[in-house]
Amino acid sequence: MLRLKSPGLERLFQSPVLEATFGGGEANVAVSLANFGLDAAYVTVLPDNAIGQACIAELRKFGVDVSHILYGPGRMGIYFLETGANQRPSRVVYDRSEAAIAKVQPGTIDWTSAFKDADWFHITGITPALSLSACEVSLEAVKAAKENGLKVSCDLNYRAKLWKYGKTAPEVMTELMRHVDVAIANEEDCQKSLGITVQSNVEKGELDTKQYQALTAEVLKQYPDLSMIAVTLRESKSADINNWSACLNDKKTFYLSKSYSITDIVDRVGGGDSFAAGLIYGLHAYGEPKNALEFAVAASCLKHSIPGDFNRVSVQEAEAVMGGNSSGRISR
Amino acid sequence: MLRLKSPGLERLFQSPVLEATFGGGEANVAVSLANFGLDAAYVTVLPDNAIGQACIAELRKFGVDVSHILYGPGRMGIYFLETGANQRPSRVVYDRSEAAIAKVQPGTIDWTSAFKDADWFHITGITPALSLSACEVSLEAVKAAKENGLKVSCDLNYRAKLWKYGKTAPEVMTELMRHVDVAIANEEDCQKSLGITVQSNVEKGELDTKQYQALTAEVLKQYPDLSMIAVTLRESKSADINNWSACLNDKKTFYLSKSYSITDIVDRVGGGDSFAAGLIYGLHAYGEPKNALEFAVAASCLKHSIPGDFNRVSVQEAEAVMGGNSSGRISR
Amino acid sequence: MLRLKSPGLERLFQSPVLEATFGGGEANVAVSLANFGLDAAYVTVLPDNAIGQACIAELRKFGVDVSHILYGPGRMGIYFLETGANQRPSRVVYDRSEAAIAKVQPGTIDWTSAFKDADWFHITGITPALSLSACEVSLEAVKAAKENGLKVSCDLNYRAKLWKYGKTAPEVMTELMRHVDVAIANEEDCQKSLGITVQSNVEKGELDTKQYQALTAEVLKQYPDLSMIAVTLRESKSADINNWSACLNDKKTFYLSKSYSITDIVDRVGGGDSFAAGLIYGLHAYGEPKNALEFAVAASCLKHSIPGDFNRVSVQEAEAVMGGNSSGRISR
Amino acid sequence: MLRLKSPGLERLFQSPVLEATFGGGEANVAVSLANFGLDAAYVTVLPDNAIGQACIAELRKFGVDVSHILYGPGRMGIYFLETGANQRPSRVVYDRSEAAIAKVQPGTIDWTSAFKDADWFHITGITPALSLSACEVSLEAVKAAKENGLKVSCDLNYRAKLWKYGKTAPEVMTELMRHVDVAIANEEDCQKSLGITVQSNVEKGELDTKQYQALTAEVLKQYPDLSMIAVTLRESKSADINNWSACLNDKKTFYLSKSYSITDIVDRVGGGDSFAAGLIYGLHAYGEPKNALEFAVAASCLKHSIPGDFNRVSVQEAEAVMGGNSSGRISR
Amino acid sequence: MLRLKSPGLERLFQSPVLEATFGGGEANVAVSLANFGLDAAYVTVLPDNAIGQACIAELRKFGVDVSHILYGPGRMGIYFLETGANQRPSRVVYDRSEAAIAKVQPGTIDWTSAFKDADWFHITGITPALSLSACEVSLEAVKAAKENGLKVSCDLNYRAKLWKYGKTAPEVMTELMRHVDVAIANEEDCQKSLGITVQSNVEKGELDTKQYQALTAEVLKQYPDLSMIAVTLRESKSADINNWSACLNDKKTFYLSKSYSITDIVDRVGGGDSFAAGLIYGLHAYGEPKNALEFAVAASCLKHSIPGDFNRVSVQEAEAVMGGNSSGRISR
Amino acid sequence: MLRLKSPGLERLFQSPVLEATFGGGEANVAVSLANFGLDAAYVTVLPDNAIGQACIAELRKFGVDVSHILYGPGRMGIYFLETGANQRPSRVVYDRSEAAIAKVQPGTIDWTSAFKDADWFHITGITPALSLSACEVSLEAVKAAKENGLKVSCDLNYRAKLWKYGKTAPEVMTELMRHVDVAIANEEDCQKSLGITVQSNVEKGELDTKQYQALTAEVLKQYPDLSMIAVTLRESKSADINNWSACLNDKKTFYLSKSYSITDIVDRVGGGDSFAAGLIYGLHAYGEPKNALEFAVAASCLKHSIPGDFNRVSVQEAEAVMGGNSSGRISR
Repeated sequence: MLRLKSPGLERLFQSPVLEATFGGGEANVAVSLANFGLDAAYVTVLPDNAIGQACIAELRKFGVDVSHILYGPGRMGIYFLETGANQRPSRVVYDRSEAAIAKVQPGTIDWTSAFKDADWFHITGITPALSLSACEVSLEAVKAAKENGLKVSCDLNYRAKLWKYGKTAPEVMTELMRHVDVAIANEEDCQKSLGITVQSNVEKGELDTKQYQALTAEVLKQYPDLSMIAVTLRESKSADINNWSACLNDKKTFYLSKSYSITDIVDRVGGGDSFAAGLIYGLHAYGEPKNALEFAVAASCLKHSIPGDFNRVSVQEAEAVMGGNSSGRISR
Repeated sequence: MLRLKSPGLERLFQSPVLEATFGGGEANVAVSLANFGLDAAYVTVLPDNAIGQACIAELRKFGVDVSHILYGPGRMGIYFLETGANQRPSRVVYDRSEAAIAKVQPGTIDWTSAFKDADWFHITGITPALSLSACEVSLEAVKAAKENGLKVSCDLNYRAKLWKYGKTAPEVMTELMRHVDVAIANEEDCQKSLGITVQSNVEKGELDTKQYQALTAEVLKQYPDLSMIAVTLRESKSADINNWSACLNDKKTFYLSKSYSITDIVDRVGGGDSFAAGLIYGLHAYGEPKNALEFAVAASCLKHSIPGDFNRVSVQEAEAVMGGNSSGRISR
Repeated sequence: MLRLKSPGLERLFQSPVLEATFGGGEANVAVSLANFGLDAAYVTVLPDNAIGQACIAELRKFGVDVSHILYGPGRMGIYFLETGANQRPSRVVYDRSEAAIAKVQPGTIDWTSAFKDADWFHITGITPALSLSACEVSLEAVKAAKENGLKVSCDLNYRAKLWKYGKTAPEVMTELMRHVDVAIANEEDCQKSLGITVQSNVEKGELDTKQYQALTAEVLKQYPDLSMIAVTLRESKSADINNWSACLNDKKTFYLSKSYSITDIVDRVGGGDSFAAGLIYGLHAYGEPKNALEFAVAASCLKHSIPGDFNRVSVQEAEAVMGGNSSGRISR
Repeated sequence: MLRLKSPGLERLFQSPVLEATFGGGEANVAVSLANFGLDAAYVTVLPDNAIGQACIAELRKFGVDVSHILYGPGRMGIYFLETGANQRPSRVVYDRSEAAIAKVQPGTIDWTSAFKDADWFHITGITPALSLSACEVSLEAVKAAKENGLKVSCDLNYRAKLWKYGKTAPEVMTELMRHVDVAIANEEDCQKSLGITVQSNVEKGELDTKQYQALTAEVLKQYPDLSMIAVTLRESKSADINNWSACLNDKKTFYLSKSYSITDIVDRVGGGDSFAAGLIYGLHAYGEPKNALEFAVAASCLKHSIPGDFNRVSVQEAEAVMGGNSSGRISR
Repeated sequence: MLRLKSPGLERLFQSPVLEATFGGGEANVAVSLANFGLDAAYVTVLPDNAIGQACIAELRKFGVDVSHILYGPGRMGIYFLETGANQRPSRVVYDRSEAAIAKVQPGTIDWTSAFKDADWFHITGITPALSLSACEVSLEAVKAAKENGLKVSCDLNYRAKLWKYGKTAPEVMTELMRHVDVAIANEEDCQKSLGITVQSNVEKGELDTKQYQALTAEVLKQYPDLSMIAVTLRESKSADINNWSACLNDKKTFYLSKSYSITDIVDRVGGGDSFAAGLIYGLHAYGEPKNALEFAVAASCLKHSIPGDFNRVSVQEAEAVMGGNSSGRISR
Repeated sequence: MLRLKSPGLERLFQSPVLEATFGGGEANVAVSLANFGLDAAYVTVLPDNAIGQACIAELRKFGVDVSHILYGPGRMGIYFLETGANQRPSRVVYDRSEAAIAKVQPGTIDWTSAFKDADWFHITGITPALSLSACEVSLEAVKAAKENGLKVSCDLNYRAKLWKYGKTAPEVMTELMRHVDVAIANEEDCQKSLGITVQSNVEKGELDTKQYQALTAEVLKQYPDLSMIAVTLRESKSADINNWSACLNDKKTFYLSKSYSITDIVDRVGGGDSFAAGLIYGLHAYGEPKNALEFAVAASCLKHSIPGDFNRVSVQEAEAVMGGNSSGRISR
């Protein structure tokens, strides 16, 4: 997606200029994984015009394999963003009707080719929310992934403003989840996408981690093919101040990560995606969930200090934070 | 429309920033007329979000009456622009599928109310090119205008990339033209919208003004209710250098304006619209076509020196150029 | 006034650029009221040049009625601003000698016409501080307002660097206050403008709310025609961190609002004006002081997150904060 | 003076930003001379605030001796500038009422101290145009200069929007000119400041150099103490395209310089000042008028390529152009 | 190289900001070829820090194969650039002592691997000018290229400020040229690098094309293994206005291209590199020199309209100009 | 040094622009002292090109005496900076190989001339770390200073990435310290430069002030000619939040300053230098260490609110904070 953001902390169109970068769920994950040194490919459909071409170039800049991106009819989805401060929340205005990816048809993407030499497929709950055909392609994708022997991760990513084509989130996501190995969610996603509730008080920004153990256990119970679920825990004190941590349940153990106090948020958009990428990287690099979870939380904690959707952070930087060095002392 | 332009002479997305202003045919004319001190209202349909609201605020800034703008379903049309130089042309990428104005339905706009106290209605050939319903509303508008005793002007404004909904430009425009008093066009418009040809050599940037006398006479002959037609004459030497003039045929006389050599074009988008506004103002202010034509050419000549779609020029400034003061000597 | 601000947190002229926007007490209130959907007109005198015209256009952009603004001799007042951080305070350099509004003469403004269809007039203590004639026009205005049946509100707004034309603040403001229905002040205003003291410790940023009950009671006692007084309570921990609340005494009840911890102030200039506008809106919308006060505090709390003098905030946004949603969670 | 310019070719306040630099007649000359390696001091009165201090720092940056600048009452004069293009002229809006230099009183500046070790004093016709006292100080200055054995140069610099305090330009300038050794003017200055006319057609941008011989001879005749007069010759084709040359009459010979075709003017403000500085430098460096004139024209030709009031050009660069190298080939 | 340019037409450090992009001879050619759709790899040595990594990312963005770039000791070469106007030339300040590529040692780069699947190798005269070891690696490279069956092109690119390590340009280049198939040069290169002179008058910007036939014939005679030589012909009228053409001699025919009048140069740095890339593309695409030459001239003509070192132009755009469409009419 | 910083909180090269200012240890101290109104000269060697010249101009802007700066071979040292946030530290990439100051040879600088009329010489541990000859010149300087009767202060400023020419920090600094009167250090400097340790826990950001008494006593014991040592105490909570204080031991008393909580750091680079300048100023102004220390801490506390290396703060501003006014209330 094209991301059009007002400068600094201005409201949209306060100045006649927009910062124009690219982002969006799966793209953010792909860039993060490439930054961590893994081979990452991004598969989507984009319009064959200056905007679509620029998006591809930007992904290629980070080393993401773009050879499976197709040009197709439709436009580039756009979101307008203004960054909040204090009691004023950040605001997103979506403009993605008729996006090329929403017009993709089943059978268009050659998944077998895309999955050649791959061992992992990641999808979010945003793609099946765009249109019926995007939903069908999403299901096609996860099935093809499993058939080709890939692990599948899914970030549920519930978006209330989508799901307008006739199907509800639970109708689709409960089906899609049957093909998923690693689920990623926040408390709202579980409720809105899967219909599984945790008693929390999001507005107040307070968390009860015990309930998350119950929640994750319940999800794992309902989806027996799932091997683990990670839940991000955000306590929102203000637009600038959040506590950030996560938990993970792999059926054997319930892990609760360190919690980071983030007091001067630069950009929290893409925070969840950076967690997903961190978890995928961590599972590859450490081979066990505890450190993977800590890496994911540290990497996504750092994301909150980076302008833009992409988490421009290296493994060394995330591991330094994960290892306890979060004093922010100048590095020279 | 939202206009998103790359900075300076950069190609699109060369830097991660876009200049974000508003523009588009009829809006440009309304702003120009308001700048000239006339009462001008803009009638359209916009989305009720931060982008639509900012567009309305921007028009209001110039004193345009926005009380007849409706909020409706659909998005804000966008165009991406990069400014050319030398042999490299400016490039426009349209992104206006699903625009709110394209989804307008006949009967939605209360033309009688909008036309209260008005004496002139201006429309361009872009609006009926957007969709079948926008086409129907365009016809509805010109008919209502005539019924309410308004003069109607139409800038034919042929856009090859539009007209995709099933009707061709000539099918629609020959019909719409039957309700028009003052037509504005360039050579390409006459050919592509009305099917009336002039032997010119646009690519070479050379003009034969004699043929324009014949052309305008032919249009007037085919549209007996038309009282006059003005044709803008652009000789494009390069993206920076154009000669700019116009002619007008009011059935009695064929007027050929002064020609201006514009050697350092700042922004030629909206040049035609600024001519239309200049002509409408001139016909009101001078009551005869000769000076109206010269004012329109002078005002639109100045437009080429102004960044953005809008012609931020006063009557005094245009009249100074019209009166022969075009030496560009500093005013202090 | 023209507001010329150094970029970001730079000192003045650190870079060769100034952000150029418009603001100033009454203008800020008018824009805020228009943003809240009320009909608001701004009455002043401006120079008839590019600066005065741009100021009018900017106000019109927000929907403020500018038809009562006069052009007159004198210049546009300017203030230069640099934004502080941490222990470094924001700094304002005033440049408003010979401002057109300071040269206004009694009888120039047609108050009867300006007050037609109006039910409320708002003035601040800045205008009578500019010059003797501005002082006389201020008194003329409040008297005319009362005669025309309008409610009058006044933000005392003491400015030590003004009041240089021979009269002191108390001399003028004690007179002006006799025509006021709703007074707005902070602790310093009461002392410096009215000579009424509260025992507080501003420098330390600590507040004793009890003393404010006594203070407001004393003001109400001295000005029997006053129906209520609101006092803003700012605890300044640093240039970035303030606590923000207010109290209101309507002779019957002493209301103390919620207090907001603002930890990352974006721009506190115009904070008081946004409170005044919030209070005026709240009194109109809710018909009683309690919610009006809470709305005013919530709206002005949000102002601290908005760059520029104007409070670019909607009723819905202020009501969301007022209703308890101040977690700053992203809105998408 | 503080110079506040809209960005690029935008109209004033088109974007909410102004480029903020410093400039003004005598300051421009001082900076130019310092750039050329001469010792140059600037004598004026400035306000003791952030704006006055920044002005002093900026001059010091270029090596101008600022030790004779006084702080005094009044404000910093400001001019707003927008840069023209094609047929649209650049526009200046002055805002210098109550400037500190206009409030200077005779006897305030210690000219004997300022002129210690100096051999040249330069003044422009702008300073005596500001106020009666500034006029008196100007006369005081040129007399003191002569008494201290300095050569005096004066750039007549007629500004129609000044001279509002009761005296006319000819009243003052004819008096001031009696103390001048080297006069600098353009055709309009001679007419408006001295009442000496040349038959030219400024608006059309055409020049008749013969008449300039007669004009300069007439000035020299009327002012017998004058040793030479230089006249700049600007043919304005458009805001971007000027021809630029000058002539000089030293009573013995009438010199006509090379003419430069400047086709893409970047900034012509300060062009005359850069000529004055070039002439003063040239007279010092070459000891004869012919090369001094050519240096002055070459240096001021280059000024048209430099943004801002100051001519940021070295002797080597001006001499390269003067020597015939004006092909603009990249220097690497 | 890192390119640090002052904004717009400002002199270096006039504002406290530098545009930071990447460029340099061979990199520019690689990006151009990738833009034209050819497979292009860039082989060099860069420092392993944020600057080297950003350079690699930027090349990757354009699709250049960066897998053969090595990290090594040394720094990133930098050049500072200010863009000229009118009579003021653009100015380059080199800062490339201790550049990593200058410290490369023979045997470091695995040419056999780099040349796998390649059919063309391009080098410029800049690399052997940097250091003795860079010179040795350059010779190593062209020899390896020939041994691996690649065609070799060389842009002589004489830079007077280099060649400081003990060898002169002719000593090295006459040796290197023995391994070259296609030479590219301008008139100065032939003289300074090969010691072969053409009678021209570069400073005056006038060209005598006949002499170029003799010159190219002489080069071909002296280097019998050379199959063709192309010479770019730049007539520099000013920093903004150049005429641009080229000639090519393939031993059989002397081709002289169309000449383009470029009147508003945006950025001429990289113009020669864009010609080299255009020629290499043209020889691949058209299989004969005439159209290859015309394509190269058209592509590099367009380069003068693009900010930055890289020629962000497509084959279609260059072919449109080559085909005669250079009127710069807006493309929409 | 040239300081090239990515905009705002972006990572290096995230946008194609760098903020280009000047800074570096001793230069920062000189600017600060000049801001405080002391006569300050900066002595160094710079390249004679646009970068060196701009550096000199910038220092001159602040009133620093630049007459002792020499032009010499070598380049301008550069450092690239990105500003951290939250858990992400600021990052510095040094690029100063072959800097002119590193190539300075003993005997090049005329210290007797430079020290004429001076009473204080300040040096940092960075200069002798650059090269063997810079080390020799550093020793030459401190010896010459003592011989000329100046007090010598030294900020140990250990930089791990320097000291690559063969000598270690302790080898050099223990020798240099024998000529120092006033030492300035942080805990790491004492350990790495002098080999004297304090038991602290830097990473955790906690301080034990008692140990600093022991540490300073130990340093004073080992260097009997030292009259005092000041140690800055930084508790780094995050990149945005630091506690800042300092202690000073003058052999008689151990002073511990107030501690400032800095919660929204704007720029901490140059913080130590601003402390050194504050201490030098304070010792001159107050004549005793207690207030000198408090002034130094207050001044350097304010530095954290100023973008850039230089501490653009006046004596009055620092004394206001020192006097207890650190509430950041707007100054108008």
